[in-house]
Amino acid sequence: MSILIKDTLVNDERQDIYIEANRIHTIGKDLAFKADTTLDGTHKAALPSLLNSHTHAAMVLLRGYADDMPLSEWLNHKIWPFETRLTEEDVYWGTRLACLEMIKTGTTFFNDMYWYYHGVARAVEDAGIRAAVSAVFIDLFDETKAAEQIDLNQRLFQETERYSPRITFALGPHAIYTVSTRSLEWARDFADEHRVLIHTHLSETRQEVDDCLNRFGKRPVEYLHDIGLLGPNLVAAHVIWVDDHEIELLHEHQVKVVYNPTSNMKLSAGFFPYRKLIAAQVDVALGTDGGATNNNLDMLEEMKFAALLQKLHDGDPTALNAHEAFRLGTEHASSIFGLEAGTLQEGALADLILVDTRSVQMTPLHELISNLVYSAHGGCVDTTICDGRILMQDGNVEDEEEVLAGARKTVAGLFPR
Amino acid sequence: MSILIKDTLVNDERQDIYIEANRIHTIGKDLAFKADTTLDGTHKAALPSLLNSHTHAAMVLLRGYADDMPLSEWLNHKIWPFETRLTEEDVYWGTRLACLEMIKTGTTFFNDMYWYYHGVARAVEDAGIRAAVSAVFIDLFDETKAAEQIDLNQRLFQETERYSPRITFALGPHAIYTVSTRSLEWARDFADEHRVLIHTHLSETRQEVDDCLNRFGKRPVEYLHDIGLLGPNLVAAHVIWVDDHEIELLHEHQVKVVYNPTSNMKLSAGFFPYRKLIAAQVDVALGTDGGATNNNLDMLEEMKFAALLQKLHDGDPTALNAHEAFRLGTEHASSIFGLEAGTLQEGALADLILVDTRSVQMTPLHELISNLVYSAHGGCVDTTICDGRILMQDGNVEDEEEVLAGARKTVAGLFPR
Repeated sequence: MSILIKDTLVNDERQDIYIEANRIHTIGKDLAFKADTTLDGTHKAALPSLLNSHTHAAMVLLRGYADDMPLSEWLNHKIWPFETRLTEEDVYWGTRLACLEMIKTGTTFFNDMYWYYHGVARAVEDAGIRAAVSAVFIDLFDETKAAEQIDLNQRLFQETERYSPRITFALGPHAIYTVSTRSLEWARDFADEHRVLIHTHLSETRQEVDDCLNRFGKRPVEYLHDIGLLGPNLVAAHVIWVDDHEIELLHEHQVKVVYNPTSNMKLSAGFFPYRKLIAAQVDVALGTDGGATNNNLDMLEEMKFAALLQKLHDGDPTALNAHEAFRLGTEHASSIFGLEAGTLQEGALADLILVDTRSVQMTPLHELISNLVYSAHGGCVDTTICDGRILMQDGNVEDEEEVLAGARKTVAGLFPR
Repeated sequence: MSILIKDTLVNDERQDIYIEANRIHTIGKDLAFKADTTLDGTHKAALPSLLNSHTHAAMVLLRGYADDMPLSEWLNHKIWPFETRLTEEDVYWGTRLACLEMIKTGTTFFNDMYWYYHGVARAVEDAGIRAAVSAVFIDLFDETKAAEQIDLNQRLFQETERYSPRITFALGPHAIYTVSTRSLEWARDFADEHRVLIHTHLSETRQEVDDCLNRFGKRPVEYLHDIGLLGPNLVAAHVIWVDDHEIELLHEHQVKVVYNPTSNMKLSAGFFPYRKLIAAQVDVALGTDGGATNNNLDMLEEMKFAALLQKLHDGDPTALNAHEAFRLGTEHASSIFGLEAGTLQEGALADLILVDTRSVQMTPLHELISNLVYSAHGGCVDTTICDGRILMQDGNVEDEEEVLAGARKTVAGLFPR
């Protein structure tokens, strides 16, 4: 399978892109390769596709279901009762819907944590994109539950072999307030032995910090440090309530941190200390969080929120500029997840998008990246390619109607009228 | 001219809408009217079209031209040099581009302040939407300039007769730091005599307050109060740096206030005290500000920023909910600008949109308004009707290519390579 994209805007120049199998083979002018498929890139710009570094994809089933509520009421009366009713099939269709939204808005990788691992993994497989998939690991400090979760994860790790390399296994210990120290230590050892990522929530709320101080006499990052969980394979979402010492620990252990501005604002969780983290050379990427707290998976919108929130908070219009915001959703994330993607270069994975530069949001075209981050919405993405396969062309995804119908049927079953 | 929209979701029920001339004639089930045009509303929801209460529309010509810069450098080196080169024809095409973007994202009214009044007004006339148009009134405390501006505005007020009632004249004294007290007093009297609105910027930056205190020994709202400018016909944009006494004055004089969250964040101007203003029963609407500080005119996106910023700042996820955010861009604005629009009811102006409820952003459909505010982007609008005329159908605007070409030509002339 090969694709030739003719005469498109690549890295500020009109060029062609030749894709062979799942890699970008050549970028250059007037390429003469014979390809199975040729795409006209005129009036389009080619960019790396986007990476969403923290989400609970299937939660798009709850989009708009319970907004503007206090956190505990939301969790106790809406989210948790819903989640007890979920089946693997529901999670499959929820994740298919999420993948469809991602493809339509230019995202081809997400870092997920949710129930029913195989529901998620099958959906990603069928949708044609990539994901680091983790099962939510919650033991509520109960040894029996912990043993079950450990068994489950050992099994899931093996079973991931059945999927294509687009799907990678990760551990998903939910948070320090839902997972015992012993289970976290198990995760540390298992992740080291099998070289897998650990995906967790960290210091999302002030309450979490207060509870940790009461319980362990130290702050969350210090607690994780003391049990040896901090390391380059730890991907921590939120990381809002951290002090200077904790930031230094994150840097020292090369922990990866995910900024979720929309979710943080919507739940009024707090302000992500981007400037301090960057000053301390901590690796940062960007995520939408789940569809119940955002309520979409549009990484272009997320980039705008990411940049504007920092500008307002720092009182500095130069804070987190458009190019940085774009990199948080492309090359920074690729590097964290070990993907040779996130920039357009020869030899890289053929994960890319075409954006219509003649749409109203992209007109005029003074500065492509500024337009993408500050003016465009996900609907400005015209073509999405992942792993050398065209998943969307001219805004059309082949199985869109089927996926929407499946998701609607699932929701109708979960919420009978 | 009449339009019948069949079987669409209106105010939570499947109904038909019959439009005759420029009004909504009847809303009900199984309407039997014979119409010139029938639209299939299945899988769609009808909503009032959106109103943008503060913008400088033609500045979309500068979309992405100068982002992430310090304010003074941005104004002195980028915006002002550009504006000195502008012609009326440039402003016409800039405003056409802005109107096209608004139509495509469901907005059919905007409150504008910019150079070349007739460039703006002609564009609005040709685009088929509505606007309150004001010429930027700046005298820089120079009597000759002030006299010129007064002459100009008197003339423009008369000349507005040449346009359809979709265009209304407003006065646009730019701000207290660019307009003399005498000119503001003239504006007060002229507005009273001719019953027109006064559109201004107010207390956008802390600097403005400090300068006002130094110059007049009082705060901006107090200063305007003392010269008699506060009144129900004053529409003040930004209104960030106001104290409790000023908020009380705004309430007492029924001043209308416009919240511009995206612009305020991008320029790090400050935090709009929504909760305090609402508690004091001040009328609030929503605006995008100009395309150089946003960088789009997407009112659905603006509603999301509006709500989320308040939630984070107040530490309260229930602050400014989706329904309130939607009303800021619909019925609140309609009431401020004296338009019988902003809700779908019989007798109201036929200014409405249809949204495709089967798009991925609207799936599932637990709560229409939540989906619109938190999940959708402007591209989810399918059909836009203003004054009883279909301006967009199935995402297509008749003269889109012509407008984009005109705008591109204008930009090419303004920024020769």
